[in-house]
Amino acid sequence: MVREYPLQERIKLDKMEEECGVFGVYSSTKKYNVANLTYLGLHALQHRGQESAGICVNNDGQFNLHKGMGLVTNVFDEDKLKSLDGKIGIGHVRYSTTGSSLLANAQPILTNSIKGDLAIAHNGNLINGAEMRLNLERQGSIFHSTLDTEVLAHLVARSFKDNIIEAFTHSLQQIKGAFSIVAMTKDSLIAARDPHGFRPLSLGKLGDSYIVASESCALDIIGATLIREIEPGEMLIINEEGIKSSYYSERKPYNFCIFEFIYFARPDSVIGGQNVHLARQELGRQLAREMDVEADMVVPVPSSGISAALGFAQESGLPYQKGILRNRYVGRTFIQPTQEIRDLKVRIKLNPIRDIIKGKKIVLIDDSIVRGTTSKRIIRMVREAGAKEVHLAISSPPVIDSCYYGLDTSRRKELIATQKSVEEIADYIGADSLTYLSKEGLLDSIQANGYGFCTACFDGNYPIGKGTDKLAIENR
Amino acid sequence: MVREYPLQERIKLDKMEEECGVFGVYSSTKKYNVANLTYLGLHALQHRGQESAGICVNNDGQFNLHKGMGLVTNVFDEDKLKSLDGKIGIGHVRYSTTGSSLLANAQPILTNSIKGDLAIAHNGNLINGAEMRLNLERQGSIFHSTLDTEVLAHLVARSFKDNIIEAFTHSLQQIKGAFSIVAMTKDSLIAARDPHGFRPLSLGKLGDSYIVASESCALDIIGATLIREIEPGEMLIINEEGIKSSYYSERKPYNFCIFEFIYFARPDSVIGGQNVHLARQELGRQLAREMDVEADMVVPVPSSGISAALGFAQESGLPYQKGILRNRYVGRTFIQPTQEIRDLKVRIKLNPIRDIIKGKKIVLIDDSIVRGTTSKRIIRMVREAGAKEVHLAISSPPVIDSCYYGLDTSRRKELIATQKSVEEIADYIGADSLTYLSKEGLLDSIQANGYGFCTACFDGNYPIGKGTDKLAIENR
Amino acid sequence: MVREYPLQERIKLDKMEEECGVFGVYSSTKKYNVANLTYLGLHALQHRGQESAGICVNNDGQFNLHKGMGLVTNVFDEDKLKSLDGKIGIGHVRYSTTGSSLLANAQPILTNSIKGDLAIAHNGNLINGAEMRLNLERQGSIFHSTLDTEVLAHLVARSFKDNIIEAFTHSLQQIKGAFSIVAMTKDSLIAARDPHGFRPLSLGKLGDSYIVASESCALDIIGATLIREIEPGEMLIINEEGIKSSYYSERKPYNFCIFEFIYFARPDSVIGGQNVHLARQELGRQLAREMDVEADMVVPVPSSGISAALGFAQESGLPYQKGILRNRYVGRTFIQPTQEIRDLKVRIKLNPIRDIIKGKKIVLIDDSIVRGTTSKRIIRMVREAGAKEVHLAISSPPVIDSCYYGLDTSRRKELIATQKSVEEIADYIGADSLTYLSKEGLLDSIQANGYGFCTACFDGNYPIGKGTDKLAIENR
Amino acid sequence: MVREYPLQERIKLDKMEEECGVFGVYSSTKKYNVANLTYLGLHALQHRGQESAGICVNNDGQFNLHKGMGLVTNVFDEDKLKSLDGKIGIGHVRYSTTGSSLLANAQPILTNSIKGDLAIAHNGNLINGAEMRLNLERQGSIFHSTLDTEVLAHLVARSFKDNIIEAFTHSLQQIKGAFSIVAMTKDSLIAARDPHGFRPLSLGKLGDSYIVASESCALDIIGATLIREIEPGEMLIINEEGIKSSYYSERKPYNFCIFEFIYFARPDSVIGGQNVHLARQELGRQLAREMDVEADMVVPVPSSGISAALGFAQESGLPYQKGILRNRYVGRTFIQPTQEIRDLKVRIKLNPIRDIIKGKKIVLIDDSIVRGTTSKRIIRMVREAGAKEVHLAISSPPVIDSCYYGLDTSRRKELIATQKSVEEIADYIGADSLTYLSKEGLLDSIQANGYGFCTACFDGNYPIGKGTDKLAIENR
Repeated sequence: MVREYPLQERIKLDKMEEECGVFGVYSSTKKYNVANLTYLGLHALQHRGQESAGICVNNDGQFNLHKGMGLVTNVFDEDKLKSLDGKIGIGHVRYSTTGSSLLANAQPILTNSIKGDLAIAHNGNLINGAEMRLNLERQGSIFHSTLDTEVLAHLVARSFKDNIIEAFTHSLQQIKGAFSIVAMTKDSLIAARDPHGFRPLSLGKLGDSYIVASESCALDIIGATLIREIEPGEMLIINEEGIKSSYYSERKPYNFCIFEFIYFARPDSVIGGQNVHLARQELGRQLAREMDVEADMVVPVPSSGISAALGFAQESGLPYQKGILRNRYVGRTFIQPTQEIRDLKVRIKLNPIRDIIKGKKIVLIDDSIVRGTTSKRIIRMVREAGAKEVHLAISSPPVIDSCYYGLDTSRRKELIATQKSVEEIADYIGADSLTYLSKEGLLDSIQANGYGFCTACFDGNYPIGKGTDKLAIENR
Repeated sequence: MVREYPLQERIKLDKMEEECGVFGVYSSTKKYNVANLTYLGLHALQHRGQESAGICVNNDGQFNLHKGMGLVTNVFDEDKLKSLDGKIGIGHVRYSTTGSSLLANAQPILTNSIKGDLAIAHNGNLINGAEMRLNLERQGSIFHSTLDTEVLAHLVARSFKDNIIEAFTHSLQQIKGAFSIVAMTKDSLIAARDPHGFRPLSLGKLGDSYIVASESCALDIIGATLIREIEPGEMLIINEEGIKSSYYSERKPYNFCIFEFIYFARPDSVIGGQNVHLARQELGRQLAREMDVEADMVVPVPSSGISAALGFAQESGLPYQKGILRNRYVGRTFIQPTQEIRDLKVRIKLNPIRDIIKGKKIVLIDDSIVRGTTSKRIIRMVREAGAKEVHLAISSPPVIDSCYYGLDTSRRKELIATQKSVEEIADYIGADSLTYLSKEGLLDSIQANGYGFCTACFDGNYPIGKGTDKLAIENR
Repeated sequence: MVREYPLQERIKLDKMEEECGVFGVYSSTKKYNVANLTYLGLHALQHRGQESAGICVNNDGQFNLHKGMGLVTNVFDEDKLKSLDGKIGIGHVRYSTTGSSLLANAQPILTNSIKGDLAIAHNGNLINGAEMRLNLERQGSIFHSTLDTEVLAHLVARSFKDNIIEAFTHSLQQIKGAFSIVAMTKDSLIAARDPHGFRPLSLGKLGDSYIVASESCALDIIGATLIREIEPGEMLIINEEGIKSSYYSERKPYNFCIFEFIYFARPDSVIGGQNVHLARQELGRQLAREMDVEADMVVPVPSSGISAALGFAQESGLPYQKGILRNRYVGRTFIQPTQEIRDLKVRIKLNPIRDIIKGKKIVLIDDSIVRGTTSKRIIRMVREAGAKEVHLAISSPPVIDSCYYGLDTSRRKELIATQKSVEEIADYIGADSLTYLSKEGLLDSIQANGYGFCTACFDGNYPIGKGTDKLAIENR
Repeated sequence: MVREYPLQERIKLDKMEEECGVFGVYSSTKKYNVANLTYLGLHALQHRGQESAGICVNNDGQFNLHKGMGLVTNVFDEDKLKSLDGKIGIGHVRYSTTGSSLLANAQPILTNSIKGDLAIAHNGNLINGAEMRLNLERQGSIFHSTLDTEVLAHLVARSFKDNIIEAFTHSLQQIKGAFSIVAMTKDSLIAARDPHGFRPLSLGKLGDSYIVASESCALDIIGATLIREIEPGEMLIINEEGIKSSYYSERKPYNFCIFEFIYFARPDSVIGGQNVHLARQELGRQLAREMDVEADMVVPVPSSGISAALGFAQESGLPYQKGILRNRYVGRTFIQPTQEIRDLKVRIKLNPIRDIIKGKKIVLIDDSIVRGTTSKRIIRMVREAGAKEVHLAISSPPVIDSCYYGLDTSRRKELIATQKSVEEIADYIGADSLTYLSKEGLLDSIQANGYGFCTACFDGNYPIGKGTDKLAIENR
């Protein structure tokens, strides 16, 4: 609708991307500064979204919201944090595809309706979002963003239930898809997870305060203790009367996104009792078991391949070598240089250490291949640095289908593994050999208590279907 | 809802204030740059609102909107104007009371609904706005501003008429109050005026382009010709098929806001065939006829009293003297100095010329008195500059009631003329005498063809009642 | 040196322009907030320069400076003023020609040298500036601006006198030209005026504080009392020991810039005991005496012609009419619209009132003609509004030579009166007749005690020569 | 002099910090975009300074400079880079101590003097800077920054040599200390290194362009080839006539800063033929040889301890474990949260992985200890995560003296190793044991061709004395 003008772009390697991270806090005595805790929590969740950030705080019914494009540290300064005073707060970081990278799409969203003020932050994707939206528009609703979150807000506004909590519960029952939601009314913090538990959501405690966060690393940074995860189909209401759990829906078996373990979640987070780094290290060990290769060393593509490479080295007995360096000042917007420097996109982030690689047979470890373009560039760069052989080992199976549950995969036809065999991919990216981890190896390696997984991107089995969203329709 | 942080405030003398100015242009061949014309037009209408400005342009259905707080020249720069390309454009300047001086309340507003994209800019006030809004919220509508304009947008979105023009017509029939509206769909420019014609709205032509503007001075600046005024109850649709007039409502007798002639409208504008400066000069002549005073000279309070003072001097034969100077760099935000300099608020804008005033009996001319605080300060300042006698003459009757049709008067009880007699006011403000123009003198002086007037602020006769708005309720 | 990027330009009518305004305050007890007083004072001097503004405050030897491009109200906000704490302050507003409109050239300038911290603000022009600068550069000085003021700072730094006040005095003796200077050391406020008194400089008092300002209107705004003017060749040192006057140079006869009375100074200022507005009114009276014309009315070009037009009307008996309106929101940057609207440059500022002008013979009054382009546009605009005859009367003689003493006149060859006779000018600008005030009439009308005048722009008699500056060289 | 207002501060762990990085490019045919190459080069050198960045480009004598506070990616956007057109460019990134973190101190500096325009960027510290500066001020020079670089500019301006290159050479002979300098006249790129080669400086080639950069990683990012290093005492002049080498001073034996190998330089850079990562790995191996400890695993403090930890693990046979995670979005300004969360400063950057550490005896590897405060916090954090024993091993000797050659060490008395024995330090920081690498072990491990080292911070042997700088005086 309204155009925006991105002068700079982020230099991204070819990865699947998480859509969002959410955080909420209720501090009845205001012992802790709610805005500060949320700021810190969002900082710890920054890897889940770097394009916009927002915090909404509620001071006895007075809602104050600030959001902006960019990293948490860019969007907030001391004055802005100081202006956000209250005892309930929610926050959000967002990754988004280029087309809809608008401030209007930043979260939390704050709406005023007959039910009262309501702020919502959401991680996930509704598979009936487009349908619900059209339906609401047909009834005369006016939308201000392209967010699924706004659908939920309209459902609450139109609910026949007068009480806002009941209206919220009622609205949750109408949406389908993957969602971990934190929301805030004038007196309550709400947390809810979809019936299949696609996306993570944890509950913690810090003194008298309750915290809800996408990952446990956001509890660690503020010194909070992890209590448990929100269950699939569960909704928590936290207010002056304490914390109240209920199930707005029948609890379905877990279909947790396995890519959280492979790539998205932070290595120091714990999900289902399983530390993420150790899970990835185990994927590397399993990969070593499944692969038969003669080489001089194991080299990770930093930082996504480090954990698996350590496991691979431990299991295979090959030395682990830091053969590629990652510039730690990347990860933000970068001006696309105008001139043609070959492989520049990769070089801005990565640089090989020639004296390690030269003349060596290396096993290069990464977590996944999406379109193959970055793998191709990295392998070329490593060869130019003198590598004798490059064997690429991937700590997950081939990605063959799109995600409809909150990840930004490319379209199905852009996924290299839907177009080529493993040999053809190896050939295309210039590897001497290419090995993927088996699906069985993947599932056996992760020990999350009581968790089942969504592996749709590896096998096309969508636990709740693809829905009616634009991507789903385009991919048909 | 969302707080904002005004660091600076405008130094205002105690005046009634216009709420808004509107402008629209349709250039079928794009011979003229629609954004540039709107920018110029808004500049000419800047006196009608200095707190926010916005332009929305439509390029074959692609709507681009930019708005911001401040003057037109602050909100727009070359890049922003360049980014607004299209053949239809509407613009808005807004004055607002401090409480709601938010970007969210800037206009035009742009909404996307099942009826299509719609941009609206509005000058006036709906007397059933609060009621309509509550009604819509009860049906589940979510509002993003506190603007009456958004009520209209929701009515269009919810109309049972499928066609957006029909839905717009239908919605106009539901709102009551004072309004001059320009709106834009993907292919049409719409202009509409309330059935009583409270606020001005003119139609002009520049080459192949049609222009709609609050005042004719906005036509002059771009070299356009004034065709006529939009009639009360009339709606114009301008698109590829040309210009089409219809009446969405029965045309009522004109109740044009007489304060436009007394103070708001620009002196070079023409309304109902009457030039505004000449009307004010005639008010001054009439005032001289009604007043009996012996004095050395006539001195206007600049700039509001200049036209009437010229007329007063002509009629009375007293010399017209520029005894007070107005700093021409005021009229924007100004930091309120922290220390106490007596009468500083007035001195930042006005400075007496001592050598003219000293030892003289002066007739001081202004257009109106609202709360009396500024008149008091000006008279004190003039006395300190040595004036022997100060006779204040006002070119309109005492303001005794609030406006519900689009002006920002103070609340009824803050109006000095509701609390004190003319003698008491003279005493309070420190004048040797105080003379108001009679209501009859006022009405006789203005020669606008076919026009009747709303004089509610002088006599409490509200042509369509006070309505259910917050101010109306507070004043009960 | 360093480029800047002006996206917008100021819409200027064709006028001579003042280079600068200066202001200084010393408040020994800090009873008054020095930064606030300076802010207000600069606001009152805004007409002397609108391109940059700056304030430097000294808190017990800790100098704080803030300056920026734009109007005083744009450059300063509450936080910035608060950060400027101290008991001595100086400020500056600057007009500059396009080429050197850089932040590096904004004043005051603050330099640290072996003599201590020194802040300087300067109004005027040194005729030996270029020569001195080259000399200093030859000795190894590095300049950071193209300002004459920096020459003075380098002279102080290099002076053989150890004491900074003595070094300053010594440096003043080396510079030649027109200058009114305020400066500040760690403990003293300094004010100095060139030996011929080309540019104005007044001394005032507010409670325990001393004020120095370019014009008395800057004393009025803060409620200060005018004590006297700084004398030609005089230097004041104001510090804990009180105020000390000395003459760094022999006092020469006054050669005060007569254009201050004609156009630059604010009408409410008093110079040499003469109020500026009354002086201009007298010029108008004299012009009426010198001119023989039959007409229906007198119309000023606002705002420069208003005072003279009032005098003309009084003397001639013709009615004074407000036939042209000035948009009071101009006077700042304005985006140059891209399309060709005839006479747009004038129309953005001025609009005729057709109903006054139509069919009438008018005497149009302005203060001066520089290149003639604007007069031509105004006359065309007035004729298009229906004027039957347009007789242009100018309240000063023809400008036939450039100024080397601090005004931005165009180059000599661009001055229309050096190229054409009065008849040819009338023809070029499209006037039915053109009358200039005689030089004698001009000099007779202004009653400033003890003042003589520089009239070089009217007669080429330069009291101290043209000097070696770039403009002087180009004009040879 | 002029205050600035830092609202945010950087969360820093307790490290010695490099002062600066420099970059220069000469592209005779303009085949490459000089500003883009410099932008990329500075990005690769970002680890050498994160507080300000600047680029100056020279287009046939027209110098354009842009600099600002913050990271390279924050200071420059597409418009700013586009505005920097030319065939010679130099750039700079700067770290600075809080007190002087001013824009005025950002580099490159650009000066105009009788010798012509000259831009300079400098890495290092002059030990006779304060003395030279005082001397120049006594001769009347005015300084605009507190940079040593400006001393050099004034020397050039005042040199008795007329030719700017000769004046530059002459000036280099007058300064003493550590410096790697790139400079630019209207037609030449200059590179110079101090006679002892304290700080690094490399020469590279990309097509027809010559590149000079602090480290070889800045050549890698743009695909340039490393030719050689600039020699101690050498000056290069690169212009249309090609590249010309000369020695402005007798070449002294190398006293290269050994801390570049220990901590500052990027692991992928090559200095004296030695890859930095491999050097650090070798330090870890040597540390393992020198240390006698029984433990379960080796854990690096990321990222400074990673390379040494890998070497330590290889030599000791203990498993290398990623027991602490570093948040990769840190490294920029961060709002200091107001409430007291214990060890928050460390937690914002680092988080332990409990499931790895719990119940284990760990060897924790870091590169150095400065004040000990961060080590103390990290060890506490690791213990709270359940570590059974924590043995801290440092891959360099105790830091016992300040640096006067361009590093920001704390003052001597703040260095923990000057105050306490190794056992006392272990006790203070809470380690079960503490082992430093021996100085001999350090020197034996680094194989840089023909290099000798400055080890003053470890042994107090200052190759050229401490000089007369403020720090030197304070530390006496």
